[in-house]
Amino acid sequence: MNIRTEIIAVGSELLLGQIVNSNAQFLSQQLAELGMNVYYHTVVGDNPTRLEQAIDVAKKRSNIIIFTGGLGPTKDDLTKETISNALGKKLVFDQEALDSIENYFVQSKRIMSENNKKQALVLEGSYILKNDFGMAPGMALEADQTIYMLLPGPPSEMKPMFKNYGREYFQKQLGFQEKIISRVVRYFGIGESQLETDIQDIIDEQVNPTVAPLAGDGEVTLRLTAKHVDELVANQLLNELEQKINQRVGEFFYGYEQTTLPLELKKLLIEKQKTISAAESLTGGMFSEQITALDGVSQFFKGSIVSYSNQMKAQILKVSPQTLQEYGAVSEQCAKEMADQIRKLSNSDIGISFTGVAGPEPHEGQPVGTVFIGISMQNRETQVYSFHFVGTRKGIRVRTVKYGCHYLVKLLTEIE
Amino acid sequence: MNIRTEIIAVGSELLLGQIVNSNAQFLSQQLAELGMNVYYHTVVGDNPTRLEQAIDVAKKRSNIIIFTGGLGPTKDDLTKETISNALGKKLVFDQEALDSIENYFVQSKRIMSENNKKQALVLEGSYILKNDFGMAPGMALEADQTIYMLLPGPPSEMKPMFKNYGREYFQKQLGFQEKIISRVVRYFGIGESQLETDIQDIIDEQVNPTVAPLAGDGEVTLRLTAKHVDELVANQLLNELEQKINQRVGEFFYGYEQTTLPLELKKLLIEKQKTISAAESLTGGMFSEQITALDGVSQFFKGSIVSYSNQMKAQILKVSPQTLQEYGAVSEQCAKEMADQIRKLSNSDIGISFTGVAGPEPHEGQPVGTVFIGISMQNRETQVYSFHFVGTRKGIRVRTVKYGCHYLVKLLTEIE
Repeated sequence: MNIRTEIIAVGSELLLGQIVNSNAQFLSQQLAELGMNVYYHTVVGDNPTRLEQAIDVAKKRSNIIIFTGGLGPTKDDLTKETISNALGKKLVFDQEALDSIENYFVQSKRIMSENNKKQALVLEGSYILKNDFGMAPGMALEADQTIYMLLPGPPSEMKPMFKNYGREYFQKQLGFQEKIISRVVRYFGIGESQLETDIQDIIDEQVNPTVAPLAGDGEVTLRLTAKHVDELVANQLLNELEQKINQRVGEFFYGYEQTTLPLELKKLLIEKQKTISAAESLTGGMFSEQITALDGVSQFFKGSIVSYSNQMKAQILKVSPQTLQEYGAVSEQCAKEMADQIRKLSNSDIGISFTGVAGPEPHEGQPVGTVFIGISMQNRETQVYSFHFVGTRKGIRVRTVKYGCHYLVKLLTEIE
Repeated sequence: MNIRTEIIAVGSELLLGQIVNSNAQFLSQQLAELGMNVYYHTVVGDNPTRLEQAIDVAKKRSNIIIFTGGLGPTKDDLTKETISNALGKKLVFDQEALDSIENYFVQSKRIMSENNKKQALVLEGSYILKNDFGMAPGMALEADQTIYMLLPGPPSEMKPMFKNYGREYFQKQLGFQEKIISRVVRYFGIGESQLETDIQDIIDEQVNPTVAPLAGDGEVTLRLTAKHVDELVANQLLNELEQKINQRVGEFFYGYEQTTLPLELKKLLIEKQKTISAAESLTGGMFSEQITALDGVSQFFKGSIVSYSNQMKAQILKVSPQTLQEYGAVSEQCAKEMADQIRKLSNSDIGISFTGVAGPEPHEGQPVGTVFIGISMQNRETQVYSFHFVGTRKGIRVRTVKYGCHYLVKLLTEIE
């Protein structure tokens, strides 16, 4: 079967530009992973005539049609009704969905209006996709050599439904014998083009497993994907590919899937039982904000001094006035003293400092992008890392915090 | 003419889910403002056969077809060529576009490859839309009672092109006599449903000008839109509507268009020549980060102490141990002392403090969402504002910082 998939999003809010069609993006990524060609996205409003016309068009050019939206309780929600007409399939109540809707209203002590029942209507003979995060079930059915799948519009319901039930349905229905397993591997401290150059022969050779670089925010992320009838073998293929890549660029590896540098830092600080505090000038509190965005950090994060002015550096952080006068606030010496001072003042195991010029104007004769990061730890020589970043004020600050986390992760990985 | 608009995005990267179709969202908003109905969005890959089929479909159901993407120099960029075939219109060089492409390569001292010239090809007889941020010009033409508009794919080129030239083209071509003027008005400190209730009669009565609430991140934003042949009158209509609304909810108004609370705070601190510093516990540096994200803040922002631990509160911020023992860190008394202390220690005109419980666990017997914000200023009684927010850790922290900015803006507006 030559797979030609079309994704039809139903919702006037998309045509008014009130929301962006992120559902189509998500499904396209998922379908690409499954090896299913997507040839069209269509967006149509909550209008049964135009929706029916869109279905007519789709039937002629596609053999898999996935709908998102229009499964809710309001009278604008017409996807099921319109497909029911277009395919000549009756709508019937799904008892399990009906029970779960009634149960929801009992539990939340709210009164169920009649139109909520409408959400339990499904196309006769369809395979039900459970909605674990909402009331309207999804469904899939085959008619005239075409597979129709109906998914809810809210991404919080649609995404888990497709991941947990929709993928499996297609794998079975299309007779995919192979399991497809993906792994996201994250790197920091190496440029995307450098990493690609380092593993160019691996990229060129790839068949199964495959490796694809993902764009992202100053980090380099690879998605490794393997297919095999045996899931264990697919995993083994991924392990081997990852090892091969990390023999070249392993020093920049920091984690898997949705992790972040601050999250890895948190894990290591807890594991190694070290406390930390920060002195932030250039970054203005961004490091502290990112750490405290995570829960459970009070056991290792003591706090920080955002010494944005020289006055705060001298009077509160107690950087020596000589250092500020002789070398300036944007200097290796100042970064070193800031890191040492915050560690001592806060009685932490580790102190980290950030100073530099975020722009748009140069400062103290130093050009925009000059950055110093200091890391102080008892019984170790204080390290200062210096950079000349190119970019916007925001880009420079974000990159600086990432490098700070990166060096802390490296340090904590090395120590006992 | 009954306007039926379709937006066709051309690009395989959209069908692979590598990017989201933000262009369609932007254009839909713009077209809604112009009063033009959008009935379909279509996405099709860099494939001339399927693109031609999509054009066929669109011609039957739409009388305005706007294309984005596929105007670049590579051989995948086929939008112009395909439309040229579909409409039987020749492609000819646009001298102005050709000059500006050649000029770009001379100025950047790079060698122009032949395929770059391709970007200066335009459909014969079309109206050229200038590209102020890239090389490929846009174009528009009428054929068979249908208007075709071709726009580049990169949003940084497409958006200004449509705003500056595309809108005007439609206004002229469709004979819109009226000018359409929009104004975004921002409110904080009032819930969306409360504001809507307060101005329900104004919303119900609206014809011209119109008022539409926009969703957004704990703030309430209204878009006011007026149409009139005379731009001055349209503006006057907006002024009157805004006044009418602000008679009801003016105390929550804080600014126009793309402004933010930190930006309004910055303006006021500079205008009133006041310096500020912060003591952040709950917010962990978020307030400081948001202030220092803006450039030119060193003239009024001295810095902050992120006193996440009680040790930092006592030893560096010098909150009295009695307060911490007797009332706890999450208390009105502690918020007051934190604000007073940071103001005095940093020798600032204003000190602001944030303490509370962001969750997920209660703290010191206080439930998640308990928040105290202190504002200290010389010769004024220190104010403490208390809240019980509901939401996630992130939501509580974000809302807390917004309220902090809100009260500072109010204070600075009141004083000399």
